[in-house]
Amino acid sequence: YRRIHKIPDNLGTAVTVQQMVFGNLGPSSGTGIAFSRSPSTGEKRLYGEFMFQAQGEDIVAGIRTPDPLYTLKDKKPGLLEDLQRNATILENHYKDVQDIEFTVEEGNLYLLQTRAAKRTAQAGIKIAVELAEEGIISKEEALLRIEPSYIRPLLKHTIDPNGCVDVIANGLGASSGAATGIIVFDPEEAERHHRTGQPAILVRSETTPEDIHGMVASDGILTTRGGVTSHAAVVARDLGKPCVVGCESIKINYGQKQLHVNDLTLIEGDTITICGSSGRVIRGEIPLVAPVFSREFLTLLHWADEFKTMGVYCSVNSPKEARISRSMGAEGVGLCRTEQMFMEPHRMPYVTKMILARNIWERKQALSNLIPMQKEDFLGIFRSMEGKKVNVRLLDPPLHEFLPSQEALALEIERARVAMNVKEMEEKEKLLKRIKILHESNPAFGHRGCRMGITYPEIYEIQARIIAYAALELKKEKVYVYPQIIVPLLSHSNEMKEVRETVTKALEEVFAAMGDRIEIPIGAFLEIPRACITAHKIANYADFFIFGTNDLTSSAFAFSRDDAEGKYLAYYLDHKVLPENPFVVLDQEGVGELISIGINKGKKVKPGLSIGICGEHTSDPSSVEFMQENHMEFISCLPHLVPAGKIAAAQAAIKAKMLQNKKDTD
Amino acid sequence: YRRIHKIPDNLGTAVTVQQMVFGNLGPSSGTGIAFSRSPSTGEKRLYGEFMFQAQGEDIVAGIRTPDPLYTLKDKKPGLLEDLQRNATILENHYKDVQDIEFTVEEGNLYLLQTRAAKRTAQAGIKIAVELAEEGIISKEEALLRIEPSYIRPLLKHTIDPNGCVDVIANGLGASSGAATGIIVFDPEEAERHHRTGQPAILVRSETTPEDIHGMVASDGILTTRGGVTSHAAVVARDLGKPCVVGCESIKINYGQKQLHVNDLTLIEGDTITICGSSGRVIRGEIPLVAPVFSREFLTLLHWADEFKTMGVYCSVNSPKEARISRSMGAEGVGLCRTEQMFMEPHRMPYVTKMILARNIWERKQALSNLIPMQKEDFLGIFRSMEGKKVNVRLLDPPLHEFLPSQEALALEIERARVAMNVKEMEEKEKLLKRIKILHESNPAFGHRGCRMGITYPEIYEIQARIIAYAALELKKEKVYVYPQIIVPLLSHSNEMKEVRETVTKALEEVFAAMGDRIEIPIGAFLEIPRACITAHKIANYADFFIFGTNDLTSSAFAFSRDDAEGKYLAYYLDHKVLPENPFVVLDQEGVGELISIGINKGKKVKPGLSIGICGEHTSDPSSVEFMQENHMEFISCLPHLVPAGKIAAAQAAIKAKMLQNKKDTD
Repeated sequence: YRRIHKIPDNLGTAVTVQQMVFGNLGPSSGTGIAFSRSPSTGEKRLYGEFMFQAQGEDIVAGIRTPDPLYTLKDKKPGLLEDLQRNATILENHYKDVQDIEFTVEEGNLYLLQTRAAKRTAQAGIKIAVELAEEGIISKEEALLRIEPSYIRPLLKHTIDPNGCVDVIANGLGASSGAATGIIVFDPEEAERHHRTGQPAILVRSETTPEDIHGMVASDGILTTRGGVTSHAAVVARDLGKPCVVGCESIKINYGQKQLHVNDLTLIEGDTITICGSSGRVIRGEIPLVAPVFSREFLTLLHWADEFKTMGVYCSVNSPKEARISRSMGAEGVGLCRTEQMFMEPHRMPYVTKMILARNIWERKQALSNLIPMQKEDFLGIFRSMEGKKVNVRLLDPPLHEFLPSQEALALEIERARVAMNVKEMEEKEKLLKRIKILHESNPAFGHRGCRMGITYPEIYEIQARIIAYAALELKKEKVYVYPQIIVPLLSHSNEMKEVRETVTKALEEVFAAMGDRIEIPIGAFLEIPRACITAHKIANYADFFIFGTNDLTSSAFAFSRDDAEGKYLAYYLDHKVLPENPFVVLDQEGVGELISIGINKGKKVKPGLSIGICGEHTSDPSSVEFMQENHMEFISCLPHLVPAGKIAAAQAAIKAKMLQNKKDTD
Repeated sequence: YRRIHKIPDNLGTAVTVQQMVFGNLGPSSGTGIAFSRSPSTGEKRLYGEFMFQAQGEDIVAGIRTPDPLYTLKDKKPGLLEDLQRNATILENHYKDVQDIEFTVEEGNLYLLQTRAAKRTAQAGIKIAVELAEEGIISKEEALLRIEPSYIRPLLKHTIDPNGCVDVIANGLGASSGAATGIIVFDPEEAERHHRTGQPAILVRSETTPEDIHGMVASDGILTTRGGVTSHAAVVARDLGKPCVVGCESIKINYGQKQLHVNDLTLIEGDTITICGSSGRVIRGEIPLVAPVFSREFLTLLHWADEFKTMGVYCSVNSPKEARISRSMGAEGVGLCRTEQMFMEPHRMPYVTKMILARNIWERKQALSNLIPMQKEDFLGIFRSMEGKKVNVRLLDPPLHEFLPSQEALALEIERARVAMNVKEMEEKEKLLKRIKILHESNPAFGHRGCRMGITYPEIYEIQARIIAYAALELKKEKVYVYPQIIVPLLSHSNEMKEVRETVTKALEEVFAAMGDRIEIPIGAFLEIPRACITAHKIANYADFFIFGTNDLTSSAFAFSRDDAEGKYLAYYLDHKVLPENPFVVLDQEGVGELISIGINKGKKVKPGLSIGICGEHTSDPSSVEFMQENHMEFISCLPHLVPAGKIAAAQAAIKAKMLQNKKDTD
């Protein structure tokens, strides 16, 4: 718990001394938990549970399922009103929704403890916005109360209410959002699957603090006992993970790694889906629908736009993603990856041909087949980003992803040989030979990005032409868009110079042919340490900079991400060799320092240089604060994470302003 | 020519106007070239060639083979003495050996041109040392005149004079050293083989300036026409490549890509060896012997030791290499690679077992087989480095180099399946499965170095123990050695901390068991950008720093060296995208800047931090100057390049002093 919440090990625990009261003295005694607003939906009404003839532990442990709070009404008139009055006083005092433990001893109400309540993301938003609207807190405070990563489930697709689903059990929805994954019965197993990227649902009769690491590693949590205030429910809400509790019809057999529900038996590894809002447990994977934003969420995003100073752009691979991003409020495209467009099944053969081409003619021919498809893509993306900047990254294909496996091909050749199918054998042998020539020992650090664009200039030439044609075509329709071209994988300023020349020449040819022009700035993608170190040289040929934090992390650490995450990174994190996964939380000490060096060197040559940033780190708040400090023009997020990015950007701006105000008054 | 010698394209060509004289006026006219000392051996006597009834071009083009200079004696008395007197005057004036073009017009001597003579490495050393001994130049000037890369052939093994060799032809030895390679007939072909690392001998009837790129890419040059002053000979000496010219018995058929000599026919791709000293052309590959240093060379090295301020250490893989290095004058071991020790055929199976181990017990068992071998190695290396520092790098195994190929294994399984050999099939399937788990997408950036040492601490623990045992064993014999331990592939200071703890604990256990101790400092190998950027943190746990320039170049550029050199680097160099191959000439702008950052940050924490440097760049003079400027304690060279390293270090020290003196007087 301390590790996850980053509480230092050397902080002590406070001890409070208070009068002893008993909830188990008789039928008019009991104990309960009350929330001043619903921690599940945020609704403004007293919410909670009560258990007669019980002490506090009985209710928290989730051993007996308690009654809803309103049942108190029938037992003792005035008690509920009393509780409500106290809850309001406490909420106004602490300026936040309260989680109150109370005991009734022979009809008398005693408050044992109050604290800010853990809540679901949905509730958190509603509560923050309403508190601000009620004047209890400011808009800034409301924004600062939202942990961007915890609202991610709200941005995800949820279970289609009209879909055909196979509900096998119903429990209590304790933390909203839907999750699909394979069944695992112990936390270690959950961790193991997490490392391989396999989503898992942790299924337990109840959870204890020893299970936290497994809960962190799971995509969802399902318990057979306990209520919405049990350990599992509280922790799941805190972690922002979907959770269903008290699903008593399910019986777990830990020894055999099975669960039984009615006549059905599921084993570890079977897929289930849980819905943390409705409490449904569903067999298999099921269709999901796009999220719908509440009024409060939209209000919050509106406030975020008011306060943030950085643009929140999106990183997209297709027109569809561009449309989703725009609808999510994206203010531009920070990164449009062109190689991903090629990964679609019906386009792959042409790309493979292009890569296998033995000479410029074969390559140009293969490319020509891709022209109409790429143009359609650009038209679609530009159209949905009307009036906005669209940063298009020139092709950066990881070669090996487009080529057949050598092992499989060798097997096919061997089989053709045994079957004496000479023609097939010879053809495949020729292909294998070519693939072997193209084979790279370390493809992530190989003949990619501008290295490919420089050795085969016809590729970037054609891409530049398509971008220009698409933009001019839309201009004729009076759809205005601001495309920018990014050059990937730069390590030396001469690479930028070379590509700039190729691209400029291609653009000018299109402008001349079309009798019209449009400004298309050409910028540098900084994702290699040497590029940061020599940014002052690169800036001479670049109209803007964009940092790519994924690859920069990889090259600064000399970590091949695929190998690191599968092999030693989990060990490093467990043993605190690394404080955080640097692919998730920006490593400010190393990678951040390289970014700062790059910015300083670039701005020395071009003081007004515009600087943006892309990468997974744009969805981590501490990383976004770093980006704010470094005055990025924009951060670029995944399409569905744009709203989270806006909140993070607003928080970073508010914090920066607070710090500035503090400095000014000091 | 301009490109190789780095002469800018915008420099003009001077025009000299002089009296016209004719060497083709009659039998008492002629033209010749004289050297004030032999450009081939350095011997102090007039040397050259003369051709009657000819103009200068005739002799340079190598179309007719000229007569030796002494034949002039018989033609006209006093002429040779006259030439000798003039040569001495010119040499004393220009303080260097002169290459004089002259013409005799009807018995009268005219000097047409004089310039510093191109010379072989061997001659260069002899001339420089003798000029210094004669008082014409200073020792410093003598040292500065030696291009370290050009003396490399002298450091290489030469043809065993007692070996059984199949001499197929004899030409004129025009540039000393022996070279073995496959026959290629055109410069483009030579370049193509150079890219794949295949040594080649360029065979031409004569060479022209258009062939220079092919000569650069060849390991040796053989021409069938021309003398020791022909284009091929001059350029080869200048490039420091072995060269045989005027080998008239060989007939080339360019069309068929064949050469004929007597009854023998060799085709492109056949292997030959040439000896640039004796002029022999030998069929096939032949035994070579260790170099013997001339008196002048030893004198020069002695002078180098006087002037240089950095230590010249060696990088070794085995006791044998350590012995060679010591005999070459190495002042310590900068880098003892422990993984290379494992690469020997009879050790490989144990290493493969260690890597394939499924758990700590299997791993420890495999390791235990390697203990006696590693101990023998350390004893041998330490013994030959008595009184010196030996920096031992802990294991940094590139996993894939130790594992069987997946493709080959898949084929073997398929064949076993067809042959219905179930047992073999199942065993190999198990092995393949394990290899697939260990497979890395980018092994050069994968689970290597300290990443492996941290996840499997037993490996470094055992290595530390062996080092301590070996050193203490020698201490008992009164053989004192100063071992130091280097931690490879660091990216984060916690890695250094972690390994330091493991190693210190292991060392202390050995000291306690042996009842004796020895100081073994533990240092950081900086070869990853992030390590340089955070060197101030790493310095807290490191007793010294060593920079590894090969891997640092690779990670700073995000270049996988294997892929770069085979794929785009040749294009980059040809098209001047990169000014130099950064794996040969240190990229001071980027990689050098990272090194400077690392040094500054490290010294801020530990002002007296000792800093060394390893990598191929230690044999490039401009890179060595950078190392001098950065006050390296030592540079570490390949065993046979230690003398070249000493000269480069002396030159760098002399230049730095000159610069300092100039600054002081300004």
